[in-house]
Amino acid sequence: MPNDTAIAALVQLLGDRLTTSEADRRLHGQNETYYPNTPPDAVAYPDSTTEVSQILKICHDHTCPVTAYGAASSLEGQHLALRGGISLDMSRMNRVLSIQPEDLTCTVQPGLTRKQLNEELRATGLFFSVDPGADASIGGMAATRASGTTAVRYGTIRDNVLAVEAVMADGTVIRSGSRARKSATGYDLTHLMIGSEGTLGILTELTLKLHGQPECITAATCRFENVGQAVACVIATIQCGIPMARIELLDHMMVRGFNTYANAGLPEEPHLFLEFHGAPGAVAEQMASFEEIAQDSGARGWRTATTTEDRNALWAMRHNAHYASAALGPGKHIWPTDVCVPISHLAEAIAQSQADAKRLNLTATIVGHVGDGNFHAGLSVDPNDADEMARAHTFTHTLGETALRLGGTVSGEHGIGIGKQDFMTVEHGPALTYMRAIKQAFDPKGILNPGKLLPPEFLQEAAE
Amino acid sequence: MPNDTAIAALVQLLGDRLTTSEADRRLHGQNETYYPNTPPDAVAYPDSTTEVSQILKICHDHTCPVTAYGAASSLEGQHLALRGGISLDMSRMNRVLSIQPEDLTCTVQPGLTRKQLNEELRATGLFFSVDPGADASIGGMAATRASGTTAVRYGTIRDNVLAVEAVMADGTVIRSGSRARKSATGYDLTHLMIGSEGTLGILTELTLKLHGQPECITAATCRFENVGQAVACVIATIQCGIPMARIELLDHMMVRGFNTYANAGLPEEPHLFLEFHGAPGAVAEQMASFEEIAQDSGARGWRTATTTEDRNALWAMRHNAHYASAALGPGKHIWPTDVCVPISHLAEAIAQSQADAKRLNLTATIVGHVGDGNFHAGLSVDPNDADEMARAHTFTHTLGETALRLGGTVSGEHGIGIGKQDFMTVEHGPALTYMRAIKQAFDPKGILNPGKLLPPEFLQEAAE
Repeated sequence: MPNDTAIAALVQLLGDRLTTSEADRRLHGQNETYYPNTPPDAVAYPDSTTEVSQILKICHDHTCPVTAYGAASSLEGQHLALRGGISLDMSRMNRVLSIQPEDLTCTVQPGLTRKQLNEELRATGLFFSVDPGADASIGGMAATRASGTTAVRYGTIRDNVLAVEAVMADGTVIRSGSRARKSATGYDLTHLMIGSEGTLGILTELTLKLHGQPECITAATCRFENVGQAVACVIATIQCGIPMARIELLDHMMVRGFNTYANAGLPEEPHLFLEFHGAPGAVAEQMASFEEIAQDSGARGWRTATTTEDRNALWAMRHNAHYASAALGPGKHIWPTDVCVPISHLAEAIAQSQADAKRLNLTATIVGHVGDGNFHAGLSVDPNDADEMARAHTFTHTLGETALRLGGTVSGEHGIGIGKQDFMTVEHGPALTYMRAIKQAFDPKGILNPGKLLPPEFLQEAAE
Repeated sequence: MPNDTAIAALVQLLGDRLTTSEADRRLHGQNETYYPNTPPDAVAYPDSTTEVSQILKICHDHTCPVTAYGAASSLEGQHLALRGGISLDMSRMNRVLSIQPEDLTCTVQPGLTRKQLNEELRATGLFFSVDPGADASIGGMAATRASGTTAVRYGTIRDNVLAVEAVMADGTVIRSGSRARKSATGYDLTHLMIGSEGTLGILTELTLKLHGQPECITAATCRFENVGQAVACVIATIQCGIPMARIELLDHMMVRGFNTYANAGLPEEPHLFLEFHGAPGAVAEQMASFEEIAQDSGARGWRTATTTEDRNALWAMRHNAHYASAALGPGKHIWPTDVCVPISHLAEAIAQSQADAKRLNLTATIVGHVGDGNFHAGLSVDPNDADEMARAHTFTHTLGETALRLGGTVSGEHGIGIGKQDFMTVEHGPALTYMRAIKQAFDPKGILNPGKLLPPEFLQEAAE
């Protein structure tokens, strides 16, 4: 095999932390969605930045592909070693390196998951806010520019990473950013690395912003006769500047999924799941303002969840949306997709996607971080049913086109990976040339996560 | 002159919107600080993106430098045509192209100033939050990664630009980002352009986040016996998560400047200037929480400013800090510098800079956006006094080193420009190689704002 010499050198370096076992390779070829198992040639388990650098040097010398692997929760196949080579499993680099409570910052290794981090932060009164649902690794979240339910209040991972250490294609270790809240010195490599899906470098350390645990947290739910009303309520809430901590929309199909998967017993109508954070007076004021807007928008069935147990149950249900969607099609896989549009076009985008699903005879749930204009469609598909897969592809493609037509983007948080490369030219036009120039300058041999994010040149040419 | 053929072609294109008059060239060579007048060879006044593209094509063909010029309020010489060539004056491209009140966004041309924009937004109930004091152009603010007094609550310009259109070195027009609140598609060129100081491309359109005008705004001031107490109060306030809209520290020298310049009649002790935004109940709650912390920190002389007039007077005074600093040394210029450190090191950084000023026999005011850990020193200097200029250089250099030693950055918001290039290698280390690679890939002829931001290669070598 072409990568055999690289693998031999890596065995020298890592000993039994370099495996080529069938089981380990298959494990690292798995994904949450509809992509076939895509095993790498070998799996490396580095312990330190120095080792990552040494691994990259070897792979660079031998032109062997390297694909970073965190918690494998990415939804567009970002962690799959599409062209073989090494799956760089970061799970051993999962330490909290330091916490600075007085600065509301911490520095962590990339293999740490968000739940592990929040567990370690518990005693400090601080928390890490980015919450994409899955217990993703921090490095993976940064690499894929993750966000989730709390982004409407606390920002996406992009807003919450102050600094990174990264190992570049040839093994060079760089640092970008600092523990200071802001900087105006030089090109913003930190944010260039965030969302680059491991195609420009491997993140080995991240300095994160933390937030104080709110004095008071109250969750609530309400429901509407139709999605249009729910979206109107969301738009008015955002426009009024109510600092929502979470504002999630679930369409009737998603509610049906929760009823099926978790016996939620909810009326099968569109719902909003909400959370308010702040000092007690501020939370009361926010809730009163929201309730007024909600009533004007036709909300009913207002329920609050003030105890920690009730809130946890609510968000656990929400976070199981992927599995609840799957419950609507037993034995099927979920093809998840997301788009993000200006909030004024949210109702149109959702209505369009519901109509598309119906037209294409697909079972689709819709759930989203609607305060950001971001929503997900979860399609039940059978990967062996070529016709259904083709219809799902049509749905995804049409949804992306709808988002672009409405001034949005083909992904708010799932990213490009393998799944959406054919949109890159349409969304970015001539800017794509400059993205390619960066890739060429940073990784001239193309060893970092090859086949992802940037479309193959022929796709670009075909679209021009 | 080497740029004569380019200028002749530009006259063909622009007619009398290309000038080479001595007066116009000198006007575009001016700056607010201590740099000598640095006139360009010619000044171009484009009317449109198409014209900017045509200008860049001509300059690219003739390898003629192009330096963008906004409101000339940059503080590290970013707008000066250091290597001659064309000063690209964006003042005619100053329109608000569209406002989407329901999305809290607008799209503007780069020559528009922040005050012009807020004037146009007045009727919408929305405002553009970034406020660096000077009535800077939006394009210049983005190019230099500006922030200012309200960044602690609403973020810097980086957080408030959703999308840009830019003309690249060879005249190619690109777009990056969209009106959607977030995106996970492709490399983040938007944030790469922001803070690149016109060295990677010329911004020709910006889509901005807007914020709802708060229902209630209250400003306040209080004073402390020493800077340490004031900083302790700031740290506790930020740690408690009080969502301050503004929290500005002024040392006793800055207060003396306000007394001299504006007859402020303030006790010459360190002050905090504050602002609270929100619903009435939330503002009252924030103020009560702050007052409690302030009293514990030894604050006295608590005064509030609830009327619009009183607030405007307060912030007008604050925004005249540059001129108030100048008033302490009649006939002198101000050498402004800024750093940003983790907030836990703020007291140490400020104490160090005060001690340095004393040791070096310099008159220095200190004022800053301390909620971000960002502060400014304003040195009174006589550019003709070589010894004083050398001491000011030593001060700036020492302050930068202090900031780096404390885990911060050599500039929170003024940028690199001409003034801080010798820090780039120290602050960024091997990452600088990747910045150079981007510059080389985007502007291989080096026509965009040459001599800025990236240090000359020999400086890098000397530091290695």
